[in-house]
Amino acid sequence: MKIKSLLPLGLAAAAVLLPAMGYAQDVDDTPPMEEVGFILTSFMFLVTGFLVFWMAAGFAMLEAGLVRSKNVTMQLTKNIALFSLAAIMYWLVGYNLMYPLGAWSIGADETGGYLGAFAIAIMEPVGLSGAEPDLTYASVGSDFFFQLMFCATTASIVSGTLAERIKLWPFLIFIIILTGFIYPIQASWKWGGGFLDSQFGFLDFAGSTVVHSVGGWAALAGAIVLGPRIGKFAKDGSIHPMPGSNLTLATLGTFILWLGWFGFNGGSQLYMDTASNVADISRIFANTNMAAACGAVAALILTQIMYGKVDLTMVLNGALAGLVSITAEPLTPSLFMALIIGGIGGVIVVFTVPLLDKLKIDDVVGAIPVHLFAGIWGTIAVVLTNSDATLGGQLISIAIVGVFVFVVSLILWTILKGIMGLRPTEEEEMTGLDVAELGMEAYPDFTKAS
Amino acid sequence: MKIKSLLPLGLAAAAVLLPAMGYAQDVDDTPPMEEVGFILTSFMFLVTGFLVFWMAAGFAMLEAGLVRSKNVTMQLTKNIALFSLAAIMYWLVGYNLMYPLGAWSIGADETGGYLGAFAIAIMEPVGLSGAEPDLTYASVGSDFFFQLMFCATTASIVSGTLAERIKLWPFLIFIIILTGFIYPIQASWKWGGGFLDSQFGFLDFAGSTVVHSVGGWAALAGAIVLGPRIGKFAKDGSIHPMPGSNLTLATLGTFILWLGWFGFNGGSQLYMDTASNVADISRIFANTNMAAACGAVAALILTQIMYGKVDLTMVLNGALAGLVSITAEPLTPSLFMALIIGGIGGVIVVFTVPLLDKLKIDDVVGAIPVHLFAGIWGTIAVVLTNSDATLGGQLISIAIVGVFVFVVSLILWTILKGIMGLRPTEEEEMTGLDVAELGMEAYPDFTKAS
Amino acid sequence: MKIKSLLPLGLAAAAVLLPAMGYAQDVDDTPPMEEVGFILTSFMFLVTGFLVFWMAAGFAMLEAGLVRSKNVTMQLTKNIALFSLAAIMYWLVGYNLMYPLGAWSIGADETGGYLGAFAIAIMEPVGLSGAEPDLTYASVGSDFFFQLMFCATTASIVSGTLAERIKLWPFLIFIIILTGFIYPIQASWKWGGGFLDSQFGFLDFAGSTVVHSVGGWAALAGAIVLGPRIGKFAKDGSIHPMPGSNLTLATLGTFILWLGWFGFNGGSQLYMDTASNVADISRIFANTNMAAACGAVAALILTQIMYGKVDLTMVLNGALAGLVSITAEPLTPSLFMALIIGGIGGVIVVFTVPLLDKLKIDDVVGAIPVHLFAGIWGTIAVVLTNSDATLGGQLISIAIVGVFVFVVSLILWTILKGIMGLRPTEEEEMTGLDVAELGMEAYPDFTKAS
Repeated sequence: MKIKSLLPLGLAAAAVLLPAMGYAQDVDDTPPMEEVGFILTSFMFLVTGFLVFWMAAGFAMLEAGLVRSKNVTMQLTKNIALFSLAAIMYWLVGYNLMYPLGAWSIGADETGGYLGAFAIAIMEPVGLSGAEPDLTYASVGSDFFFQLMFCATTASIVSGTLAERIKLWPFLIFIIILTGFIYPIQASWKWGGGFLDSQFGFLDFAGSTVVHSVGGWAALAGAIVLGPRIGKFAKDGSIHPMPGSNLTLATLGTFILWLGWFGFNGGSQLYMDTASNVADISRIFANTNMAAACGAVAALILTQIMYGKVDLTMVLNGALAGLVSITAEPLTPSLFMALIIGGIGGVIVVFTVPLLDKLKIDDVVGAIPVHLFAGIWGTIAVVLTNSDATLGGQLISIAIVGVFVFVVSLILWTILKGIMGLRPTEEEEMTGLDVAELGMEAYPDFTKAS
Repeated sequence: MKIKSLLPLGLAAAAVLLPAMGYAQDVDDTPPMEEVGFILTSFMFLVTGFLVFWMAAGFAMLEAGLVRSKNVTMQLTKNIALFSLAAIMYWLVGYNLMYPLGAWSIGADETGGYLGAFAIAIMEPVGLSGAEPDLTYASVGSDFFFQLMFCATTASIVSGTLAERIKLWPFLIFIIILTGFIYPIQASWKWGGGFLDSQFGFLDFAGSTVVHSVGGWAALAGAIVLGPRIGKFAKDGSIHPMPGSNLTLATLGTFILWLGWFGFNGGSQLYMDTASNVADISRIFANTNMAAACGAVAALILTQIMYGKVDLTMVLNGALAGLVSITAEPLTPSLFMALIIGGIGGVIVVFTVPLLDKLKIDDVVGAIPVHLFAGIWGTIAVVLTNSDATLGGQLISIAIVGVFVFVVSLILWTILKGIMGLRPTEEEEMTGLDVAELGMEAYPDFTKAS
Repeated sequence: MKIKSLLPLGLAAAAVLLPAMGYAQDVDDTPPMEEVGFILTSFMFLVTGFLVFWMAAGFAMLEAGLVRSKNVTMQLTKNIALFSLAAIMYWLVGYNLMYPLGAWSIGADETGGYLGAFAIAIMEPVGLSGAEPDLTYASVGSDFFFQLMFCATTASIVSGTLAERIKLWPFLIFIIILTGFIYPIQASWKWGGGFLDSQFGFLDFAGSTVVHSVGGWAALAGAIVLGPRIGKFAKDGSIHPMPGSNLTLATLGTFILWLGWFGFNGGSQLYMDTASNVADISRIFANTNMAAACGAVAALILTQIMYGKVDLTMVLNGALAGLVSITAEPLTPSLFMALIIGGIGGVIVVFTVPLLDKLKIDDVVGAIPVHLFAGIWGTIAVVLTNSDATLGGQLISIAIVGVFVFVVSLILWTILKGIMGLRPTEEEEMTGLDVAELGMEAYPDFTKAS
């Protein structure tokens, strides 16, 4: 912290007596006009970036609230660990793999690259000394900070689906590969200017596909390899509900995610240097909010009609599905179209959560309907409001990303299963991972209902 | 997300080898000076707006923490549903009802309007293409985003008072009318330039009356029509305390609201395009914090003196009452006056919570003392520091808004009671709304104390 | 709230019919260039300041989660009360004691002062009318708001260590002295331009020593005077673990602190008026995140190796220790050095938490390892990346601050113990402070495990 040049008014009289304090900067030290856009965009990245960081807490609360109390400590551990590992991996390899900026390892800018560059992330020097920053964009540090949060978000999606039955370390090893390689490689295909962007005209503004469906595909592959929790699906075909242990925290998590999503979608405008850009970011904030609201309302009304009573967890997931749905294109829709797009996201969740159960795929928190199914819907819906998108380009890109992530994940999960095993013993799972694997209960003072 | 023009330094060597990458924007693309104020104010709205959004989570946590565990799922459902419905209603009709900008349905700008315009909210086109934005203010999207959060806040206030004994759907129907019509119509009288503003010189900077007392009046009307919870007031005149089930969450909710209030009051400056405006916003942040702090300390000391022990829920409500009190005028007070105004808010809560009990009005979370009584105090207190305010103008405006909102709410609650009934059966209420109406417990894993 | 000059597009047609609405500001009212830096820096302080405010909630959740359920209401009460008292004391005396700006009571700028000025904090007048603000810095209100949050953070650190066994009022009286005098006086020695800054060249960017170790020293003194909780250390030398009652909230608290720390370190750059400054703030955000991540990962791996299972509370404290470690110099390290500095912070926590137990010092939440030990490490580590720092200057400053705060705190705790007693009776402590001292349980609905 530098020493301030400020004169508190309460001390102004005293200060007048001291002619030369030596603190004041040169009064002419106003920012050159060409720097203002750089400052504004960089600061916008820092603000929207910390909002996306906050989503890590949202996922942690949502998942801790939706698992049974005997697996809460484990779920919390996974969530803080996965974020931390993502932060390290994205620095170590992910950032430059995702944004090779011409230095493709396979492919080139002209043809649309396939595999980015291998190098650690490096920021500008302190005080920009000796650097000649590109004043038309933003500081490298702010961009890195913002982008790594997207990588971490992708990882957060996986942990919920696989909760309550996967051991800590194989899960974390998967996360290391996901955040260091799987996510950045496929993200480079679109956001790094790779082949999906240049050859297929794929449009995905903030990542319905690049982030959310990727988390969803990785989770789906894991759920298949891992199998359902013991007792979830009985032999007679009946489904045993396993209600979450703390709906207040699940609701808090949803509100946190909703808040963070303003940064997620808004920051993806990437520029806040003109009136036009800030007006677009404003549209995005308003549309994002509308889609979430209508996703929630759709689930509210549908569960009342279908089941005769409102289902809070569906309403929460409806809001999240609305958010995922608008993420591929939060800018071009009108508020009315945002309402439609988000509302359909909510409908998708209500209908596909039971579908997964029928397929005997055990998704503890509903992350696959929310992030994968609504993510696909949102990516397709781009064509409704953005004439630059083509249905073919969107569909083939969804398919290419999906096949890549699903197949690689399936292989990786299978390898991890073979080498170290994914699941705790049956007894450990029944006891709960908190006591069995970590030896620490989340709520030790309270008596558990049998 | 556009493709970035950035050159990560770690790849600079590689990049030098690629002469024409084609990503860079024109280097002369600096924001025109006249756009800078527009960008700054718009971004300020987005930041302060997301803070006010966050208050929705604060109310949800506060209320979930202050109700008994058997009604927590319901309280969470109401909170996320009311925010979502508010977001839709404010778009559908509220925004233009509140800011008719000349297009009054009844009245006109010269005389001060009475009823605004009926039209959905529409933002500027993408990229401002074809639009000629008013560069002296902010983007429509950012303004809409900010303003809708105030509408939602008003609705959040109502849910706490009526907790534990009102059915979901009549409550939500009331919210639809409140956010679509009652709130925006009375808000137009002041903030839309209507008759309270032009004829009475009413001053209410951020809504001690326009937001908080409105929520309070609607809640009071509801509490009267609805009656108290079963067992709250015994026939012998004794009052049965029904302690909140989770004070950690209630405290978290209070901190969230305190944080969000910086946006609530700060953003209400409406401009951040000059040194003067940002200095004013800074004053508002500091005053808002001081009022909350002193409200809390006042309740801390008073409950120690009066009851021989500190009452945490009073301290929390004291902080909130301090915040409500400073909301009508967070700019003109000195820090010392902010301390006084907020402190009196805290005192009001300590004395009026028992008063409501004596009147057999059952306010589950203390929202009426906090939002209505402290809101009235704060609105009157404007005259202490702002010479533009008159006691008469403040009082008559408080009365007009109060009569309008209270009477309309009373009628509406009565109609809803007649048509669909407001209360669950006695048995359902005793069981708790979570199991009886929603079939879903908030904390199913834990054994309840009888 | 002023009346907006905005024309919603949906009403544009109507508006055209109204020739003179009188709302519009002069279109030439663009911010003068020299004001832009002032606006940007002030707004940066408000944003980073509200993030640091949010840390108060983080400490409250962390501590409420780590104490036993019978002391939760008390811990929450202490946390909201200490923040409120800090806000008042910092206004009343702390701000000008810390930033005397020439008006030293003892010492002077030339020699480096020792004791600052006594006066309440005063902001610029509304609308800067009559003021001639220093446009090269920021508004006084924004600076005051930002700085008081640091004072409050120092106080928050103390409450965790002393939890579960100190009475409310002696604790709060200590906080009043700490925030009004101890913190600001020693902070003036560095950040107010006092003798540590001018004579020893002490470098402490955002307060590893000035904030965190100060809280740690005050807590250590308190823990020694107060003694351990009943039953913590058995006579046979065994240590009785007393697990936290709610690890979800402890994790939430950690995420909140992590988020708030971006403001804590980032805002300490003190200027955002140039490309260079915003690039530096960006570096700080990225480094802060990296240090936290690596602190968490270090504790994750170490506890697995040392104990055969991961310890979530250690991982949380590891992240926090990483944050404390980077706080003395978040700017000059590369991301790699931030990883090293933060990682060592995590290692320190894992090894020193058991050390305190051996010394029979009862630190309920681990605040001494996190804030004091990692704070010392971080302050020393400045020499690794900042050539302006000297090992001697850092060590002597750590020692001077440590001796001052520890000795004064020790005296103060001893006086409070003599005058009013610090501890509740043995029976009250066994019952829990919630029922014994406050008469209010945090979780009354739930059955406690014996």
